[in-house]
Amino acid sequence: MPVITIEGPQLSIEQKRELVQAVTESASNVMKMPKHSIIVMIKEIDRENVGVGGLLLSDKK
Amino acid sequence: MPVITIEGPQLSIEQKRELVQAVTESASNVMKMPKHSIIVMIKEIDRENVGVGGLLLSDKK
Amino acid sequence: MPVITIEGPQLSIEQKRELVQAVTESASNVMKMPKHSIIVMIKEIDRENVGVGGLLLSDKK
Amino acid sequence: MPVITIEGPQLSIEQKRELVQAVTESASNVMKMPKHSIIVMIKEIDRENVGVGGLLLSDKK
Amino acid sequence: MPVITIEGPQLSIEQKRELVQAVTESASNVMKMPKHSIIVMIKEIDRENVGVGGLLLSDKK
Amino acid sequence: MPVITIEGPQLSIEQKRELVQAVTESASNVMKMPKHSIIVMIKEIDRENVGVGGLLLSDKK
Repeated sequence: MPVITIEGPQLSIEQKRELVQAVTESASNVMKMPKHSIIVMIKEIDRENVGVGGLLLSDKK
Repeated sequence: MPVITIEGPQLSIEQKRELVQAVTESASNVMKMPKHSIIVMIKEIDRENVGVGGLLLSDKK
Repeated sequence: MPVITIEGPQLSIEQKRELVQAVTESASNVMKMPKHSIIVMIKEIDRENVGVGGLLLSDKK
Repeated sequence: MPVITIEGPQLSIEQKRELVQAVTESASNVMKMPKHSIIVMIKEIDRENVGVGGLLLSDKK
Repeated sequence: MPVITIEGPQLSIEQKRELVQAVTESASNVMKMPKHSIIVMIKEIDRENVGVGGLLLSDKK
Repeated sequence: MPVITIEGPQLSIEQKRELVQAVTESASNVMKMPKHSIIVMIKEIDRENVGVGGLLLSDKK
């Protein structure tokens, strides 16, 4: 614990490395908790499975 | 915000369009919030990954 | 199953009744599933615990 | 309801059966609720999408 | 990791102890993972915030 | 979208401001997405509701 879940678009492995490193760093500093206790989970969600304003992202230009 | 997450079976793209549109409409009306602020995320979960009553759905007739 | 989670602002009990009824109706119709199988969970989140664009909602006018 | 979500590594179908059965049993006994009311969702997350201590699991030996 | 989230009714601290112990035990055995790596989060949800079949649990007898 | 959920201990409002600002910054940079599209939700979980290694955090020294 803490557990940080990031739901967003498809990412490259390089982006995942960067994101996990940066978010863990921020959480560790702000929460004054050791990095090893921080879990980050990345959930890539297809545009076809996300709606904003009533429309699927995959249907938006 | 608000964020509405729908965890359920596999859906066709047409069903996803309908679901996102209808759920966004309901949330906007009831919560008195603009549709553009409402995010809907659809998470399709295989029957093999859902248990009800201690049994996997994929093991039920 | 399905499980629908609605994360948003504080709501009155009347709004909760309306939201659960409307969202269940939509999900049942679109997913062709019986209403009794549909679970809706409402999670009211304080403005102090939501950030949009890097700012807490409670810090926005 | 209750809804139990298990986010973890890839599992065999046999492991999923065992896990759903055991977790449903425990929840039913402790919460004094009928098994048929208990939903378990298994979410298998690739090692590339999990960070612990700022590193992706897939980058750890 | 793994992370197990249990969303359900209000529980006593004794029930929470029992539930965490039993669910961790099951997950550890089935997933062949050390207990210290298993996180369980209990989320108590008021009956007024749960809908089943389109009705709030707090409105059901 | 993206939606970032941070489940962890009680935080001061100052910590929440810092955390939302830092995590949004990181996500925006890495994902190449505008900050205004990034939602962060903070979920403070009591030690009595978190288990690690089969024990409640509130029962640990």
